Amino acid sequence: MESLDDRTAHETLTTVECVRLLETQFIGRIAAIDRGAPIVMPVTFVMVGTTVFFRTSLGSAFHEIVKDADVAFEVDSADPAYHTGWSVIGRGRSQQVFDPETRRRALALHLRPWARAGEPGLISIPLTQLTGRRIVQIVAG
Amino acid sequence: MESLDDRTAHETLTTVECVRLLETQFIGRIAAIDRGAPIVMPVTFVMVGTTVFFRTSLGSAFHEIVKDADVAFEVDSADPAYHTGWSVIGRGRSQQVFDPETRRRALALHLRPWARAGEPGLISIPLTQLTGRRIVQIVAG
Repeated sequence: MESLDDRTAHETLTTVECVRLLETQFIGRIAAIDRGAPIVMPVTFVMVGTTVFFRTSLGSAFHEIVKDADVAFEVDSADPAYHTGWSVIGRGRSQQVFDPETRRRALALHLRPWARAGEPGLISIPLTQLTGRRIVQIVAG
Repeated sequence: MESLDDRTAHETLTTVECVRLLETQFIGRIAAIDRGAPIVMPVTFVMVGTTVFFRTSLGSAFHEIVKDADVAFEVDSADPAYHTGWSVIGRGRSQQVFDPETRRRALALHLRPWARAGEPGLISIPLTQLTGRRIVQIVAG
């Protein structure tokens, strides 16, 4: 008997499709390394071209990690009923944004922190790698 | 002027609440370390108590990393309209499941791979740490 597992497959997305899909979502997840261990945190983000912007709380443990780090960034969307969806994964070096004009532009895009706590920090990840895939249903013949 | 940022705060969730919320979702993200760099991958998962189960493709790069690794696991849910939501983060050592009875039980919970590719591997993460928070709106007085 064919199981549901046998009726899905994945398609590779182009970079342009990845960026377009990233722009449809507002929550992503940042993976980084903290004292040798992997960590993952959700963030609300905006894209400016292929650069991710998200906010942190200055002085927080998370801010201290991502203010200058190699990170991975993940966004996905799925339809549970049909088991279809997509995921996009980016990589880059996250860095604190100090430039007033860049800060103004990113914050003008309604960038909100996942939760308020302390003074706001602004982090950017100029993505150097971007991959994505779409999960599709295989219609039985 | 009060901004939207100033009208949210976060509440810490209990372990019981974290487990209950994990059971309401079917997609989580695994963060691990691959050759010194952080990686993050979405997975479809099921919970059995405080153990996460997810599937991989045997022989895939992702399977090779998570078959025996310290990992972080993240699940979230958010309402974009009201900027409310929650996130739960777990930690543990992921390991390949060989025991036929455990495999049978986990797979009976309708555990489906994010995408079909190759022979199925089954990975468990007995969580040794579990934290969560809820983002709430602060109603202006």
